[in-house]
Amino acid sequence: MQTNKRNIYLEMQSLDDAKSLWFAHFENKMNAETIQVVDASGRILAKPVFANQSSPNYHAAAMDGIAVLAETTYGAHVDHPIMLEPKKNAFFVNTGNVMPDNTDAVIMIENVLKEASGHVSIEAPAIPWQHVRKMGEDIVATEMLFPQNHVITPYCIGAMLSGGVFQVDVRKKPTILIIPTGSELMDWQSERISNLPKGSIIESNGTMLKLCAIENGAFADRHNIVPDDQEELCQIIEKNVSKYDMILLVGGSSAGDSDFTRAVIEKTGKVLLHGVTIMPGKPVVLGDVQHTPVVGVPGYPVSAIVIFDQFIRPMIYQMSGTHPPKRTTLPVQLTRNMPSKLGIEEFIRVKLGKVGDNFVASSLPRGAGAITSFTQADGLIRIPRHSEGLKANEKVHAELLQSEFTIQNTIMAVGSHDNTLDILADQMRQRYPDIKLASSHVGSLGGLLALKRGTCHLAGSHLLDIDDGTYNVSYIKKYLPHMSVQCMHLVMREQGLIVPKNNPKNIKSIADLLRKDVQLINRQSGSGTRVLLDYLLQKHDIAPDNIIGYHSDEYTHMGVAVNVLSGAADVGIGILSAAKALDLGFIPIVREQYDLVIPDVYWETPFIQKIVNVIRSQEFQKRVLALGGYHTERTGELLTL
Amino acid sequence: MQTNKRNIYLEMQSLDDAKSLWFAHFENKMNAETIQVVDASGRILAKPVFANQSSPNYHAAAMDGIAVLAETTYGAHVDHPIMLEPKKNAFFVNTGNVMPDNTDAVIMIENVLKEASGHVSIEAPAIPWQHVRKMGEDIVATEMLFPQNHVITPYCIGAMLSGGVFQVDVRKKPTILIIPTGSELMDWQSERISNLPKGSIIESNGTMLKLCAIENGAFADRHNIVPDDQEELCQIIEKNVSKYDMILLVGGSSAGDSDFTRAVIEKTGKVLLHGVTIMPGKPVVLGDVQHTPVVGVPGYPVSAIVIFDQFIRPMIYQMSGTHPPKRTTLPVQLTRNMPSKLGIEEFIRVKLGKVGDNFVASSLPRGAGAITSFTQADGLIRIPRHSEGLKANEKVHAELLQSEFTIQNTIMAVGSHDNTLDILADQMRQRYPDIKLASSHVGSLGGLLALKRGTCHLAGSHLLDIDDGTYNVSYIKKYLPHMSVQCMHLVMREQGLIVPKNNPKNIKSIADLLRKDVQLINRQSGSGTRVLLDYLLQKHDIAPDNIIGYHSDEYTHMGVAVNVLSGAADVGIGILSAAKALDLGFIPIVREQYDLVIPDVYWETPFIQKIVNVIRSQEFQKRVLALGGYHTERTGELLTL
Repeated sequence: MQTNKRNIYLEMQSLDDAKSLWFAHFENKMNAETIQVVDASGRILAKPVFANQSSPNYHAAAMDGIAVLAETTYGAHVDHPIMLEPKKNAFFVNTGNVMPDNTDAVIMIENVLKEASGHVSIEAPAIPWQHVRKMGEDIVATEMLFPQNHVITPYCIGAMLSGGVFQVDVRKKPTILIIPTGSELMDWQSERISNLPKGSIIESNGTMLKLCAIENGAFADRHNIVPDDQEELCQIIEKNVSKYDMILLVGGSSAGDSDFTRAVIEKTGKVLLHGVTIMPGKPVVLGDVQHTPVVGVPGYPVSAIVIFDQFIRPMIYQMSGTHPPKRTTLPVQLTRNMPSKLGIEEFIRVKLGKVGDNFVASSLPRGAGAITSFTQADGLIRIPRHSEGLKANEKVHAELLQSEFTIQNTIMAVGSHDNTLDILADQMRQRYPDIKLASSHVGSLGGLLALKRGTCHLAGSHLLDIDDGTYNVSYIKKYLPHMSVQCMHLVMREQGLIVPKNNPKNIKSIADLLRKDVQLINRQSGSGTRVLLDYLLQKHDIAPDNIIGYHSDEYTHMGVAVNVLSGAADVGIGILSAAKALDLGFIPIVREQYDLVIPDVYWETPFIQKIVNVIRSQEFQKRVLALGGYHTERTGELLTL
Repeated sequence: MQTNKRNIYLEMQSLDDAKSLWFAHFENKMNAETIQVVDASGRILAKPVFANQSSPNYHAAAMDGIAVLAETTYGAHVDHPIMLEPKKNAFFVNTGNVMPDNTDAVIMIENVLKEASGHVSIEAPAIPWQHVRKMGEDIVATEMLFPQNHVITPYCIGAMLSGGVFQVDVRKKPTILIIPTGSELMDWQSERISNLPKGSIIESNGTMLKLCAIENGAFADRHNIVPDDQEELCQIIEKNVSKYDMILLVGGSSAGDSDFTRAVIEKTGKVLLHGVTIMPGKPVVLGDVQHTPVVGVPGYPVSAIVIFDQFIRPMIYQMSGTHPPKRTTLPVQLTRNMPSKLGIEEFIRVKLGKVGDNFVASSLPRGAGAITSFTQADGLIRIPRHSEGLKANEKVHAELLQSEFTIQNTIMAVGSHDNTLDILADQMRQRYPDIKLASSHVGSLGGLLALKRGTCHLAGSHLLDIDDGTYNVSYIKKYLPHMSVQCMHLVMREQGLIVPKNNPKNIKSIADLLRKDVQLINRQSGSGTRVLLDYLLQKHDIAPDNIIGYHSDEYTHMGVAVNVLSGAADVGIGILSAAKALDLGFIPIVREQYDLVIPDVYWETPFIQKIVNVIRSQEFQKRVLALGGYHTERTGELLTL
C-alpha cells in the first residue's frame, strides 16, 4: 500500500517567513529611465528633482492696476490724494505682467481714479511689494522640488513644468508576463465559448491578474492559454524569462497529476518555496529562473488574488523602490463565529456595514473558488496561524477593500433570499449612486435574529404562521418582543415545486416527494421556504425522513433551481422567478407574502426612507412584475403589528 | 472720475448656490457604450450585469482524489476498509474535472490506498457532495452580478468572464478639451524655453488639468496655447463645442483688459455665473455653449485646482452617473491662527503630521500662485464663509490629500531653514521610502516654540548666544525649561553677505549696509540669521533704522538669494550654499552652528532613530559637503545640555 501524493507540504512555510525569503531574494531589482515630465503622472522618482527656473522668473504684478514705487505714494489720503502720471511714475499692468523698472508695488485698479487731465490719483499709500509676486515666490531655481521615491501627481507635474523641469528620472515599470495554464481552460474569444463544453472553464484569472498588475503600476502581458504540457511550459519560460521582470504561471501549482508548475521551475531554475500556511493560497510556488522571479499562482481565483496581494503586488512596488500603499483598517464586530484551522493563516472576505454605532462584518463564502466572495467583499479579516478562530461579537480589525464612506453608505439586509432584492439593489444604485444594498441570505429566521443582535438594518422575511395563515407578524412578536419595528410588505410571490423542463418525472404535488425515483433538494433550516415545506408535509402527513434528499439543502432559490437544472436533484421547492430564470418547470403550490422588517431606530434615517421611495415607485414594481411569479398590489404598505 | 473695472462681483454667488445651479443645469448628460469586458477596468456600469453561464457550469471535483457515490462508502472504517473498483465505482479525478455520472463526492487522494489487486480502499465514508464544487456554486446563470453604477474592478472582470459575460454596457467617458489661454504663456516644447524671456510663463495649468481630468475618468485633450484674442477664442469654442462633453478655458476668467473668457462665453453661448465667494478660485466663469458646459478656469494654479475640484471633477462623475469618491477627513489641531475674510469660503492647504497623540496642521503659503502649496499639502482645511478664521489649537476637520498612513509616517520639522534639510529628506526617502520629512520654515525661535506647543517632532536651530558665543543651548534652557530634549549637531555652515555676481557695488563688510546706494533684504524676526545680523550691527554700532531695506524680509536663505539675483536688493545675509545655488557673490562673515533639537519623548522612536542613522551616514555627509559652505566634522554628535 502507498499513498499517491508527494507530500509537498513538509517544507511549507509560514506567510511571514515566506515573505522574508521572497523579498530578500529579489532585492535591488530596480531600474530607472528618463521620460518626459508630461508623461510621468503616477510614476515614482528615481532621483530627487531640482528646479531649473524660478517661478515666477521675474517680479510680476499680482493684480490688475498700476505699478508704482511705493515711496512715491506715501502720505496719500482721501483728503490728500496723490497724483501720478501714467508711463512716468504709474504704469498700468495686468495680473502676470512684468513689473516695470523702478516699481515695487501694485495698486489695485479699483482704487485708482482717472483724472480728466490724464493723470491718475490714489487715496491711500502702497506698501512696498504689495500685490507683487516676487521672483521665486513659488519656486526658486536649484531648490529641491521632490525627493526620490516621491510619487508624481498631476500637481507635481504642474510644479515641475513651472520650475523648468521637462525630463525626469523615474523607476521603470516592472514588466510581467502572465501565463494561464490548464487543458480545461478556454479563452473567452474562442469560437466554442457560446456553447461551453462540460468540463471546460472560461479562463479568467490571467486577465484578472493582468489588470491587477497594471492597476499596481506594472506593464503586463497575458500569454495565450497553455495546456498542461511540461515541455511546452519550459520552452515558454525559457523564451520569455529575459524579456520580463516577473513571470506568473497561473494554475498547476498544486501536486496533482497534471500540475507541472513546480517541475517546470525546477527544470528551468530553482524552486525557492512550495506551499505557504495560508488559506486560500496554500499551494503557491515561488521560484527563481535566471534571477527573474517566477510565481506558480494557484488556479482558484480567490487563491490567485491572495497570492497576488501577498507576493506579487509588493514585488511590483519593491521593483519600483517603494511599498504598496497600506490599506485602511477599521475595528469591526463579527456577526457570527469564524472557526479556523490551527496552523493556517486565513484570509476571510467580509461584507461590512455600519449598523447603529458599530461596523459589523459578516463573512462571505470561504471557498477558494468563489470569485464573487471578492467582488462582494468590503474587507478582509485575517485569522492568525495560532488561532482556532474568532467568536461572534468579537472586535477585530478588517482591512478595507472599499472606502469607509462606501461602507457607511451600505444598507445591510440579512434574511430570506428573494430575486426582487437584486432589482431593489439596482434601482437604489440608479437613483442614489452612493448607496449600496448588500443582502446576506441566511433565511427568514436568521434575519430576525440578526435584527435582534443589531447586525443589520433590515430583514426580508416570509414566515408562515401555521395556526392562522398569517405571515411574519407572530414571528416578530415572538422573536423581537422588545424591539419596536415596522413591517413593510414587499411582494406576494408564487412558491411551488421546481422541476426540470417538461417535468420528465411527471411530478404533480407534494405527495410525489415520497416516490423512490424522486430526489429532493431542500432549503436550509430557518428559511421561510423550509418552514413552508414542513407545513405542507405535515398537512399531507408525510414524515420528512421518508423523502430522499430532505437533508440536502441550499441557501437560495437559485441554488435549488441549479440543482434541478444539473440533475443533482429531481425537484426542489422555490419561487417561480427562480424556475423561470433557468427555464425550468414549475408546479405552483401557494401564494405567499414576503415582507421587510425594519427597526424603528432606522425607519426615519435617510437610508431607509430612500429604500421606501424606491419600493413604492412604479418603476421598481414594473421590473418586479416582469420577473414573473410576483404580485405588487400591496407593495409598500405597512403591516399592522 | 470713474472706476476702471466692471463690478463683476455684484452677481457673485456662494459656493453652495453656484454648485446647485451648475450641477442641476447639466443633469442627465450621461451616455453609454458597449465595450469588451476585458477593457472595462475602472469603468462604471450603465446597466446591471446578469450572468450568462453558471460557474462552475458542471459539478466539478474540488480536490485531487477519487469520485464516488457517497452511499457506496457508508460504513467504511479503519477496521473495515471498503474496496472500490477504479472506473467502476471509483474514478480518479483531478481538481476541476467533471464529476463522472452517478458520483456525488470526492475522497482526497491522501485518504485513498491502492491495493495490489488494482482496487482502491478507503477507511472512512464520504458525505454527499464533499469536495465537490456544485454547478453554480459561485455564479448561477441569470443572477445579477453587479447593479448599475457599480465601478468595475479587475475582480469584477474575473467574475464576469467566469459568468460568460464578455461585453458590458458602461458610461462613456466624458471628453474634455482644455484650452490654455494667455499671450504670456510659452509651451514647454518651445525652442525659446531654455532662455525664457522675462514676462513669459511656462504653461503648466493646461497639462496639469488634463492629467487631473484623466485621473478622474475622463478623456482629455490639451489644445495649443491660444493668445489673448477674443475672435480666435470664439472660433475655437465654436469649432470644438460639438466634439467635446466639456471645455475648459484656462486663464482670462477675471476682468482685466486682456481677460476674454466671459466675453467669449457670452458671444458663443450663455454665462451662467461669474464669480464665486471662495478663495482661491473666485473669478471662475461657468457657462453653457450649445448645452455643453464651458468653464472659465482662473489662471493661478491653486485657483485652477480648487475650481477643478469643486466644479469639474464632480461634473465628470455626474456625466458618468455617480459622484466622486469622498475624501477621508481627520480631526486635526491647528498650529497657528488662520485668519480669514468674512464672506469668503477659504481653502487652506496644510501639512499634516501626527505629533504625540494629535494630528497637527500647519498652513502652507496661501497665495493662489503657489503650486507648491498643493504639492506639499497633505490636506485641505475649509474656513466657512461666515467665519473670520480659526484659532490656534482649535480642532477642525481636514480633508486628506494623502493617506492617513503617509501622514502618520511624516516627521514634522519646524524651525530654521537650511539647504541640508532637503538632502536629509531625500536620503531618508531613499533608505525608508515610507517616511517623509516635512520641513516648515519659521525661524529658529519659531521652531523652539513649536516644540513647546507640541506641534512638531524636531526643530532646526542656530541661535547665537551673544554673551558667550555658544549656540542653541542657552535658548533651549530659556524657552524649553520644562522639556527634556536632545540637541544633535547637524552642520557648521558659512554665513555671510550675499551679493550679485562679481559684487558690482563692491560691498565688503557689514559697515557697507549703511551706504545710501545699498538696499538690504533681511530675514524675518525670530530667525537665527536675523539674530546674527542684529548681533553684528550691535557690534558695529549700527542703528537698524539707518539701513535701507532692514524691514523687508524673507523666510528662507533662498528667498534672500533670489531677491539679490533679481535686483530687488543689493545685499542679503545668508548661507554660502544659497549664494552658490544661484551663482551669486558671497562675503563670508561667520562660521555658525546648526543643530536639531529633539524632545526625549520622540528620541527613542523608530522615526527619529532612522533620521539619526541617516545623519550619521557617510553618504549624507558627502552630499552636504558637495553643497559648499558646510563642515561635517562633528555631524551627529549630541550636545551637552
